[in-house]
Amino acid sequence: MDVAEKINLQNVAVTSDFWNRYRELVVKEVLPYQWKVMNDEANISIAEDPQNNGRDQNSHAIANLKIAAGQMTGHHYGFPFQDTDVYKWLEAAAYSFGYHPNPDLKKITDNLIDLIADAQDDDGYLSTFFQIDAPERKFKRLQQSHELYTMGHYIEAGVAYYQATGNQKALSIATRMADCIDNHFGLDDGKIPGYDGHPEIELALSRLYEQTGTKKYLDLAHYFLNQRGQDPDFFTKQDKADGWDNEILPGMRDLPKTYYQAAEPIVDQKTADGHAVRVVYLCTGMAYVARFTGDKGLLEACHRFWNDIVHRRMYITGNIGSTTTGEAFTYDYDLPNDTMYGETCASVGMSFFARQMLNIEAKGEYGDILEKELFNGALSGMALDGKHFFYVNPLEADPVASKGNPGKSHVLTHRADWFGCACCPANLARLITSVDQYLYTVNGNTILSHQFISNDATFNDGIKIQQTNHFPWSGDIHYQISNPNHGTFKLGIRIPSWSAKYDLKIGGVTKSLPVQEGFIYLDVAAKSLTIDLQLDMSTKMMRASNRVESDFGKIAVQRGPVIYAAEQADNEAPLWLYHVNSEAKTSYHYDDKLLNGVGVIKVAANRERLDPDGISLYQPVQPATDTPVDMTLIPYYAWANRENGQMRVWLNS
Amino acid sequence: MDVAEKINLQNVAVTSDFWNRYRELVVKEVLPYQWKVMNDEANISIAEDPQNNGRDQNSHAIANLKIAAGQMTGHHYGFPFQDTDVYKWLEAAAYSFGYHPNPDLKKITDNLIDLIADAQDDDGYLSTFFQIDAPERKFKRLQQSHELYTMGHYIEAGVAYYQATGNQKALSIATRMADCIDNHFGLDDGKIPGYDGHPEIELALSRLYEQTGTKKYLDLAHYFLNQRGQDPDFFTKQDKADGWDNEILPGMRDLPKTYYQAAEPIVDQKTADGHAVRVVYLCTGMAYVARFTGDKGLLEACHRFWNDIVHRRMYITGNIGSTTTGEAFTYDYDLPNDTMYGETCASVGMSFFARQMLNIEAKGEYGDILEKELFNGALSGMALDGKHFFYVNPLEADPVASKGNPGKSHVLTHRADWFGCACCPANLARLITSVDQYLYTVNGNTILSHQFISNDATFNDGIKIQQTNHFPWSGDIHYQISNPNHGTFKLGIRIPSWSAKYDLKIGGVTKSLPVQEGFIYLDVAAKSLTIDLQLDMSTKMMRASNRVESDFGKIAVQRGPVIYAAEQADNEAPLWLYHVNSEAKTSYHYDDKLLNGVGVIKVAANRERLDPDGISLYQPVQPATDTPVDMTLIPYYAWANRENGQMRVWLNS
Repeated sequence: MDVAEKINLQNVAVTSDFWNRYRELVVKEVLPYQWKVMNDEANISIAEDPQNNGRDQNSHAIANLKIAAGQMTGHHYGFPFQDTDVYKWLEAAAYSFGYHPNPDLKKITDNLIDLIADAQDDDGYLSTFFQIDAPERKFKRLQQSHELYTMGHYIEAGVAYYQATGNQKALSIATRMADCIDNHFGLDDGKIPGYDGHPEIELALSRLYEQTGTKKYLDLAHYFLNQRGQDPDFFTKQDKADGWDNEILPGMRDLPKTYYQAAEPIVDQKTADGHAVRVVYLCTGMAYVARFTGDKGLLEACHRFWNDIVHRRMYITGNIGSTTTGEAFTYDYDLPNDTMYGETCASVGMSFFARQMLNIEAKGEYGDILEKELFNGALSGMALDGKHFFYVNPLEADPVASKGNPGKSHVLTHRADWFGCACCPANLARLITSVDQYLYTVNGNTILSHQFISNDATFNDGIKIQQTNHFPWSGDIHYQISNPNHGTFKLGIRIPSWSAKYDLKIGGVTKSLPVQEGFIYLDVAAKSLTIDLQLDMSTKMMRASNRVESDFGKIAVQRGPVIYAAEQADNEAPLWLYHVNSEAKTSYHYDDKLLNGVGVIKVAANRERLDPDGISLYQPVQPATDTPVDMTLIPYYAWANRENGQMRVWLNS
Repeated sequence: MDVAEKINLQNVAVTSDFWNRYRELVVKEVLPYQWKVMNDEANISIAEDPQNNGRDQNSHAIANLKIAAGQMTGHHYGFPFQDTDVYKWLEAAAYSFGYHPNPDLKKITDNLIDLIADAQDDDGYLSTFFQIDAPERKFKRLQQSHELYTMGHYIEAGVAYYQATGNQKALSIATRMADCIDNHFGLDDGKIPGYDGHPEIELALSRLYEQTGTKKYLDLAHYFLNQRGQDPDFFTKQDKADGWDNEILPGMRDLPKTYYQAAEPIVDQKTADGHAVRVVYLCTGMAYVARFTGDKGLLEACHRFWNDIVHRRMYITGNIGSTTTGEAFTYDYDLPNDTMYGETCASVGMSFFARQMLNIEAKGEYGDILEKELFNGALSGMALDGKHFFYVNPLEADPVASKGNPGKSHVLTHRADWFGCACCPANLARLITSVDQYLYTVNGNTILSHQFISNDATFNDGIKIQQTNHFPWSGDIHYQISNPNHGTFKLGIRIPSWSAKYDLKIGGVTKSLPVQEGFIYLDVAAKSLTIDLQLDMSTKMMRASNRVESDFGKIAVQRGPVIYAAEQADNEAPLWLYHVNSEAKTSYHYDDKLLNGVGVIKVAANRERLDPDGISLYQPVQPATDTPVDMTLIPYYAWANRENGQMRVWLNS
């Protein structure tokens, strides 16, 4: 084999119809709509969710920046982290330029960069809540302030915008922020030996380091990871010094330290506890820093958290967060389907984590989970119209229950226009617009193709990989590879865990290759090569580990990476009356008219006759009154796009 | 048939070993212990329950009365209704004198009556919270004040104490209270057109009317029932006039009007909504007043609430209240087993309601539900040692879940010493000590024997009924009736709904009698008569209406009135791994060594092998790995008297 030059990925053009519809939807609907919202020009109804706290219906996000920039007067409105709505939107817009150049939008975003630069303090600080209304409290209540979280989101946006447009100002705002943070935080005398209540700055500084090569940013990220939890009373001491009852987010003072992953040093934490989004953002930062520094303790923590989340605390859809209280993880194998949280942002963050783990190790499971999030748990956060969003993604929902049982009041059964805490819509938008960055992982002379989203990818030395398919509806994956100049390189293709068997043809010839940690590898030496991979797209009846009480005796239906759900729109309610046998006959067809085109699964079921209302609640068991019927299942991500009704992923068996 | 004189019940001596153990336990353990607690002499640990609100560990209940009486100085401590702990305890003590005369205790209770009399204001008012710390706010925030609730509990105690001891002062405190309330409430000019946020005064005034014959007390009770909800904004108006943020019980202001059954007039309310204890206390008051006044609207409301609760909102154990939020009902057929409330007080209140409905109509269902509460949902509130209590009675519990999932943190898996809001222990004590009053209902010339708790009952005209049995373990019920003077009377015996078949012998001769609304009737003309009733005590596999999602596909085991539960103490956890077929073989034996003597049921089950920890959470369905095992079930009321572990009533099938 030639010792070839190191391979770099230069560009990926997504050609998948499935994803391009979403990507255009973000450009056509999500970005303009969110821009209006942030400018208080949209007529929105904020969801009745616990995040709302009776706040104003308007976002005020741009207004806050204008006030901080001296262009307007007034008070700050919204959450202390309101600025991040703008930054995540900006980041999504930056990515969109890569596939949909848009001069009008670019005028807006360039002006926005100017506004942000004007809002930034001379020392690099930028958090409009504190600048406008509480300058004397800067960095004094980090448990609740979200200052580093907020600046971290700008740093991500600034790096992305610079990469997309070359706008130097966008990057320099980010480096000035990072310098400001570096001046204030650390173990040196006079610095704050602390960290933010919400992880984010760690991954943001890593991205800034990746872009600029400035090592102090990596060191600072590393410091934040190491320092976390070293003094479990750090937040309490700050809260007391700042005035105990002077809370920024009322009630946060009383949350357990595990909520913030601040009860003990990360390397000592055994399980993934606390606020799910915080956990996966933290893990993403850990994975970055572990890769850049070789810190083995952090890498072990990455593995420990990954395994705990993926093998003990994740829903089959990829959603995470079993309770609304603290939007948090609970305990191993506790996965209730109807009172869960499963925040969209947490699935987005899990995608970040998986992508970074792929950068460390060529392990198929990381690609499996990334795929699971992309086609299920994360994607379900947005309606097919791009205008309605889920914060909470249940696996079992019932409008009557959400209305009638307070323990389920956080579970919406129709996506809302917007949220008081609007983290999820923009977070999902930036994932969708950057999905091209999630398809390949390049390491030395190896290219890993771990996602089956059609694309044309260009590498250095003239390497091109053209992947065409109708995934996720078809498992026929075609690769056309050009390698005119490079000599030999290694191509790894992920064999998904859901495809126990597969067929492979290389240059039209059937080949059998060993699966190593979820990948098959081939050496590409020819100038041109076709690969045809046929994945097993048979419909699978899935069960959960029987350690999961909530899914015991139940069946979920999966085809390829797509998890299916039964909806009242297709099946007579109540949906729990259907029994599905694990050997039930199924049929699949693609319906291009339904839900923007989805694969539909019909499954043979038995439906019990509904008992009459008002009779004795409890009676001796009688012979069942089942009637054979077909159940219709649709992809989980596409639920709640029709009439409001019941939905369930786990079917009674 | 002779037109005989009206029959009166004079005395019932309980001879049931089962119940006498509990009744003596109350005398020996509960009453002395609670007296210590109320005097702040017990070293108690208050349960970590949402009711505690970080309050002082001590009760202060007697101290509050002493301060109000001018015997001590200081502030009021505890809930505004703290006085009711004393009154319910006093009521329980009064009943205990009927079967366990106790001169030492009577000295204490006589002195307590003197203390209460001293604490009472000249105008009859008595609520120590307001007397001590907020006299200017009397009757000004009825939504939260519990003033009429508090006085209602005294009135019940005062009537009971007078009936038990002849203490005139005890009764006169009650009539002075009622007069005070009558002076302040009503639709006349200058009176408050309101009612209490917590129903209780309605049933208390009815009992006072029943004792004294003073019609204005009945009229006042009737007024409170009619006025409730007439002006749905009544509480809000009072709250605003009293100072909106000046809450007595923080957060109560924000509860929905249905929590207080104050959203609309009772006669317009279609479903049993809101705080479950409030509902059943209200229903009890309605049933009293409907009976005494013949108010048909109220009687219809009684039927409507009864049917909604019993046929749509009651657990198989008799527990009610499906959510911890507001300790409330949710919606029809919403009966989650693991996040439920099922407050002990609500089951006690349901017993009150059932008893009053029996006074109106000879319908077996009222006796069925009363029996269900006595042997299951209410009784489970107290440990076998009489020293530990449940506030919440789940049908499925797991210590790991209660600790790890915030949505279940209210579900204790071991009974607590005491509670910050200590309503349940004393409430259950007064039910147990007065259980003799729940066995017969007499109407004209008809005696209904609707409970199978062994007893010797004495009526006027020399009628005696001696009932002997080993219920609930045996279904052989023996009656010995003496009727030397009365001529003919009608005896109704309840055939429980769980006993579809039964054998009856009258004077040794097998008889077949029609069951009319749950009762068989016989005319007793002989001077002496034996009746032998053999009820069907076979073990029954029960199912819930399939409108109840939480119980769908599950089986509960019942024998006689007793609902059974599986506990980790007898069965390897996790308990959800057991499959029980509806035709599974069962065996029953009485174990006099276990749990103070219980009937034990063994049921043939199949147990799945627990999946290994840490493997893939989701996999294609595999053939099951069931092993046949015997499950051991114990009566639900006796759970949580051994090691802390899982429990479940509804078994997977």
